[in-house]
Amino acid sequence: MAHIFDKVCIIGIGLIGGSLARAARAADLVGEIVGCGRNEANLERAVELGVIDRFDTDPAAAVADAELVVLGVPLGAMQPTMEAIRPALRSDAILTDVGSAKASVVDAARSAFGEVPPGFVPGHPIAGTEKSGVDASFSELFRQRRIILTPTEQTDSRALGRVRSLWQGVGGEVVEMSVEHHDEVLAATSHLPHVLAFTLVDTLSRLGERDEVFQYAAGGFRDFTRIASSDPIMWRDICLANRSAILDMIERYQAELSNMQEAIQQRDGQRLLEAFLRAKQARDRYCGG
Amino acid sequence: MAHIFDKVCIIGIGLIGGSLARAARAADLVGEIVGCGRNEANLERAVELGVIDRFDTDPAAAVADAELVVLGVPLGAMQPTMEAIRPALRSDAILTDVGSAKASVVDAARSAFGEVPPGFVPGHPIAGTEKSGVDASFSELFRQRRIILTPTEQTDSRALGRVRSLWQGVGGEVVEMSVEHHDEVLAATSHLPHVLAFTLVDTLSRLGERDEVFQYAAGGFRDFTRIASSDPIMWRDICLANRSAILDMIERYQAELSNMQEAIQQRDGQRLLEAFLRAKQARDRYCGG
Repeated sequence: MAHIFDKVCIIGIGLIGGSLARAARAADLVGEIVGCGRNEANLERAVELGVIDRFDTDPAAAVADAELVVLGVPLGAMQPTMEAIRPALRSDAILTDVGSAKASVVDAARSAFGEVPPGFVPGHPIAGTEKSGVDASFSELFRQRRIILTPTEQTDSRALGRVRSLWQGVGGEVVEMSVEHHDEVLAATSHLPHVLAFTLVDTLSRLGERDEVFQYAAGGFRDFTRIASSDPIMWRDICLANRSAILDMIERYQAELSNMQEAIQQRDGQRLLEAFLRAKQARDRYCGG
Repeated sequence: MAHIFDKVCIIGIGLIGGSLARAARAADLVGEIVGCGRNEANLERAVELGVIDRFDTDPAAAVADAELVVLGVPLGAMQPTMEAIRPALRSDAILTDVGSAKASVVDAARSAFGEVPPGFVPGHPIAGTEKSGVDASFSELFRQRRIILTPTEQTDSRALGRVRSLWQGVGGEVVEMSVEHHDEVLAATSHLPHVLAFTLVDTLSRLGERDEVFQYAAGGFRDFTRIASSDPIMWRDICLANRSAILDMIERYQAELSNMQEAIQQRDGQRLLEAFLRAKQARDRYCGG
């Protein structure tokens, strides 16, 4: 089978970028893979692991020949990276990204390129672990995971089709939705839970006897707070990039938490039981065991 | 080796009661095990599984000969159960419980018996899963798990020693602390996280497009909300029983969440990054991977 892309450049060889490189290589979907990033040791490690063929720490040099450029950098680095590659990008190059918020990346593209380029296909694979870096990457990361693409009005349908083929080729289930809808859904299902988990661990670490407190944290707590081990820089950027949808969800959550608080204050067992039952039923129905 | 107790009665043959019966039997620490509960089918199932030797649905009849009575009932059922067994309890019987809050159980004992009996050893194994019922019970549940005993001023040291031996015999690591301290530590490490997880799932299930929302809930979300599958009645009782310590923790949490909200509102990336770093470091340090 012919490659979908002969020359690919991935900027940011972390968990997602590294896993995409491994998976695309394993499925023989791409030819040469050029890596780019700020951390030279990480890029050397990626070559050593066979994840990429070569690297260049200069984004403009790295993208020079690329048919596909994948932006796997933190959301806060999207616009500067786009500005750096703009003069060197092939005119027919397809550009995609893996950012966890989409409106901010589309805005960054508009600012960096003057208008949203037709070859830009905003994307977000719903996959990942709390680990970071190329050493944590693996080629099965996207298998049966949803990959959300959020084409804009400007997006060229052939560019969209080729990016879709790449993600399907690495095992992902590609769905399309609007930028705005993506940002609302992700605020609810991913961004809010991360903020809550970080806040819980931070709250406990501020208690006087924190060594003891963490000592008695049982199994459920460990699962619950695993996501608080995620990369702080990435999550700072997500909070800033998807600010208004996240603030809306925090507000809804606070209202529900105040309801719970009120029910406990008033010793209203019936209200607590109803809320816990509703939650258990929703959880068991949608998430399984 | 001689049994620690020849005749044991366990009231409430669920995950904890059932697992204690299995583990004590497997380690040959006890003689006859009599089960008691309101659900006859569950008790028949427990006999069928070999978890208990026989059962009686009448608490007074069930405890008649017992040297040790273990209360494995929801916190809200502690006082009525104590009142039901009081007339039939042997004068030298040792009584213990496995409730997740301790002040309320000590209060229940004071009310039911007129004073806290010297043979009463309040206890709480920090073990469990989100599953309930005798079918979920297993004999290894307490291995290397902390078992907190909270003796009162009245507690007889020989009774305490024998209950400690039983828990150590099933693999638990027994620690002692005051009733009040237990309730504060557990409010922070277990009760608050459960309330937060129930509240999150409830918040999402109230959103308009909840089918879709749960569809995009990725791996971290599943772990995060697993504890929201826990038994709603048990958690209603815990919220009522450990009301003031839980309200105190909810208040602290809300203050931290408002801080996060304010930092996001003000686009204060530095403050977010510091909080996320603090949380990640605490989590990685205390909970490991």
